Amino acid sequence: MQKPTLSQIAKQLGLSTATVSLAMKENSRISDQTRARVKEALRESGYVYQRSAAGLRKSKTDTVGIVLNNVSDPSFSEILRAIEGELAKEGKTVFLCNTDEKVERQSEFIRKMSEYNADGIVLVPAMGTQATDLEEMKKFSPPIVCVSREISGYPIDSVVADETIAGYTAAKHLLKLGHRRIAVVGGTVNISPFNRRMKGIRQAFDEAGQEFDRALVFECRPVRAQGYEAAARILDVEDPPTAAIGYNAIVTLGLKAGLQRLGKKIGVDFSLIANEGIDELQHSNPPLSTTSIDLQEMGRVVIQHLLSRISDPTAPTKLTLIPTELILTDSVSPHR
Amino acid sequence: MQKPTLSQIAKQLGLSTATVSLAMKENSRISDQTRARVKEALRESGYVYQRSAAGLRKSKTDTVGIVLNNVSDPSFSEILRAIEGELAKEGKTVFLCNTDEKVERQSEFIRKMSEYNADGIVLVPAMGTQATDLEEMKKFSPPIVCVSREISGYPIDSVVADETIAGYTAAKHLLKLGHRRIAVVGGTVNISPFNRRMKGIRQAFDEAGQEFDRALVFECRPVRAQGYEAAARILDVEDPPTAAIGYNAIVTLGLKAGLQRLGKKIGVDFSLIANEGIDELQHSNPPLSTTSIDLQEMGRVVIQHLLSRISDPTAPTKLTLIPTELILTDSVSPHR
Repeated sequence: MQKPTLSQIAKQLGLSTATVSLAMKENSRISDQTRARVKEALRESGYVYQRSAAGLRKSKTDTVGIVLNNVSDPSFSEILRAIEGELAKEGKTVFLCNTDEKVERQSEFIRKMSEYNADGIVLVPAMGTQATDLEEMKKFSPPIVCVSREISGYPIDSVVADETIAGYTAAKHLLKLGHRRIAVVGGTVNISPFNRRMKGIRQAFDEAGQEFDRALVFECRPVRAQGYEAAARILDVEDPPTAAIGYNAIVTLGLKAGLQRLGKKIGVDFSLIANEGIDELQHSNPPLSTTSIDLQEMGRVVIQHLLSRISDPTAPTKLTLIPTELILTDSVSPHR
Repeated sequence: MQKPTLSQIAKQLGLSTATVSLAMKENSRISDQTRARVKEALRESGYVYQRSAAGLRKSKTDTVGIVLNNVSDPSFSEILRAIEGELAKEGKTVFLCNTDEKVERQSEFIRKMSEYNADGIVLVPAMGTQATDLEEMKKFSPPIVCVSREISGYPIDSVVADETIAGYTAAKHLLKLGHRRIAVVGGTVNISPFNRRMKGIRQAFDEAGQEFDRALVFECRPVRAQGYEAAARILDVEDPPTAAIGYNAIVTLGLKAGLQRLGKKIGVDFSLIANEGIDELQHSNPPLSTTSIDLQEMGRVVIQHLLSRISDPTAPTKLTLIPTELILTDSVSPHR
């Protein structure tokens, strides 16, 4: 005889599965009477709830924590959608944390997820997260996979965009169009991909025999408002740039709006290349060129890594680079 | 003698508070040796960990769940920031859920938060959430406060914008400027504020002795991409509108980009009024007029309500309307 499922029992009793589940755990929010009814039905059906298992370290809670540095960044919504889709197939519930780039909030959330015996954690490390922060957590944390940013000097599974190539192809294209004064906007040396990106950009300049001007690097938090505000600073330098490469999608969208406010015509007298592959880049005016990355794929790979790590905690750590592709629109044109 | 705090003990032992906390709970991820050291230090210090309390229904876990319909909507980031700030003062950790407008995902998260004995839940109900969905949850859920949207026909604490006034003032202003064909973009009858808003808009038309054309209501999910796509439909009607009122900030920003792509000059040959008070409305080109709401204040009120509800579960439920204010920019101009 097939053992009945929890939902069959719930249906039989006219209760929700949530109520049955809580009654089984003798949660006091469920009335004594309902708890007794559930107990009786379970006994009759031969359903065995392995209550003792729930407290064990090895037990699965089917919960995964996802830690985002900036919950309003639409590129993460896209990765999230992929992650949630993959995890739904596995019957796992997602708990999110918005660190707002605060390392302590990140630690506190991971600690709580540990206490709740989460199966694993996906982490976009807050700016300035150190190897020591993770080392500390290793003692109690469930498996962690980093996405979008790495923790330098710390062995942890990571899935990041191939930023060196992204920077290289964007700069190479602008150089080919005759631009020499190229600004780089957003990100800081506190975020790992920034350094990869700069490496690629410098390489393109070297190959073209051009000198890269460090004064045209405008570091800032990669958010829309800071891109907007950077516009004035960019146009204020002596011999101002005629093109810019944005660190991510939103900082570039902010920069675009800021430049337009100051009278620049994007794709006519100023060329702009963004990063990441969110829809909004195509839904802006003009649509923005981008070193695009398949965010859905990125989310899928992250979950593959996390599931492997959960099933084999001692395997060597892996770094996966997701390829990027230069997608050109009317936002870039030859230097004139 | 003052009892030592957990962090003092951690410091004394050269451990993190997280490790001490887990050791106290005899979590098996902490080595036997460390657990013994912590136990000894606690015994010596006279620190008493009320372990039994942790399992009780009434115990506080200092965790609050926040359920968002669309985690990438920047207006929620602003409310979130306020909520997280208030909760941090109370020492509470925030767990987020992104329902992506899916009612089942919402139920599943609330169930998990219940099992984890969360102190409370802040809910932006997914589109189509019914009174019966909440009735079901009432049996086990911690206190819930709704924000931004209500559940019609269900008594639950709610904090929403005063949408009737928002719709009324926006429509009245456009009518005063001579616009007669005014489109309404975004939202659906499945979201409670939509109906309040429509009431205010109709009232303004009635007072002006003008007829409101229901064919100019373009319902859609209130997200950027759908606003962008609505632009073509709006301009395709016979006797097309010369102005539009957007349901929220992002749908209006999408609409703006879409209209611009189709050659419309916002504030010159098409007037646009958004809703909500996010920065991006001012960082766009042109900055957008908006029926603005103080999102920080909204977040603050939500947490006030939640804390009151936690301390008095039987008090009558409250609906708080947050006032809106029409903020005008160059995005609106007289009909010509």
